[in-house]
Amino acid sequence: MKLLEDRIRKDGKVKGTDVLKVDSFLNHQMDVELFVQMGQELKRLYQGEEITKILTIEASGIGIACIAAQCFGVPVVFAKKTKTRNIAGDVYTSKVESFTHGKVYDIIVSKEFLLPGDKVLIIDDFLANGSALMGLISLVRDAGATVVGAGIAVEKAFQPGGKMIRDMGVRVESLARVKSMSEENGVEFC
Amino acid sequence: MKLLEDRIRKDGKVKGTDVLKVDSFLNHQMDVELFVQMGQELKRLYQGEEITKILTIEASGIGIACIAAQCFGVPVVFAKKTKTRNIAGDVYTSKVESFTHGKVYDIIVSKEFLLPGDKVLIIDDFLANGSALMGLISLVRDAGATVVGAGIAVEKAFQPGGKMIRDMGVRVESLARVKSMSEENGVEFC
Repeated sequence: MKLLEDRIRKDGKVKGTDVLKVDSFLNHQMDVELFVQMGQELKRLYQGEEITKILTIEASGIGIACIAAQCFGVPVVFAKKTKTRNIAGDVYTSKVESFTHGKVYDIIVSKEFLLPGDKVLIIDDFLANGSALMGLISLVRDAGATVVGAGIAVEKAFQPGGKMIRDMGVRVESLARVKSMSEENGVEFC
Repeated sequence: MKLLEDRIRKDGKVKGTDVLKVDSFLNHQMDVELFVQMGQELKRLYQGEEITKILTIEASGIGIACIAAQCFGVPVVFAKKTKTRNIAGDVYTSKVESFTHGKVYDIIVSKEFLLPGDKVLIIDDFLANGSALMGLISLVRDAGATVVGAGIAVEKAFQPGGKMIRDMGVRVESLARVKSMSEENGVEFC
């Protein structure tokens, strides 16, 4: 998606060869006008697919998911990150490893909000090693629901997550796919 | 706002006399169509006010804030909860006490995203003891920016936060104000 690629070139900040900061428009300050364009592009990509629910993960996926949900006319459910199991009631749970923060945490969704008949589009801001997306896919499958696909804002295509998940037969649509990046030369897209 | 009150009566679950679960439509599963109505109502309430930015706090404020931001045509910034100070660069920071979880945490916003000229509308899903809202107001004031007001989905008017913050001279608009509640009689609004 050219609009997002252009914005990453303009406002993204590369640190080293694998950290891309997009917090001025994507995941700390959020450019909601841009999110509307991204939501419409996801709707175009998934046109013809039956989708009953959007699943994302707190916190930075929520904004994109909610704006996109307006295009799809479906509710959003967000998986919660937790280090405790003190949530009342029954939940689906899965483990996610954060490479950025160097820790493993549980993600949970109340069983009430993922049903066997659901056709789920998973939305998140980043895809790198694929751990969060794998965790979300696992929650959907535990519920007996169907993963229609994933809609990702920024995929680091030089990391293994995208290939791993596509190789599982899951459709992944990334609005910007970073081929490589460096502080000297900026970001190159696939 | 009658639409929200009706929805709370229909789908909210009261536990004891002070826990109101609205996670089927507000803060775990999110009814984005409802959020659009709420955003339009906040826009109506704050019409004529100059607003340059919406500030919220992760995670459950983000969805409402992003949808409302479409009505206001401004970006959203969300404060991050953290127990560490390992964020690169300069941040404004404030303390918030969670009565639900019985702990104190820091909230932070990058100084880049709150500027002295900003006119800020603070949006959150709940107002009870007012600790989160006080923390957000403190971040805005530390930046030298102006708090135009707060837009809250559900205020527990029987808890002290709303009065405390209005007594400070801050405008607070709550779309549903709960006067009292019980498992037997459900929710009564102001």
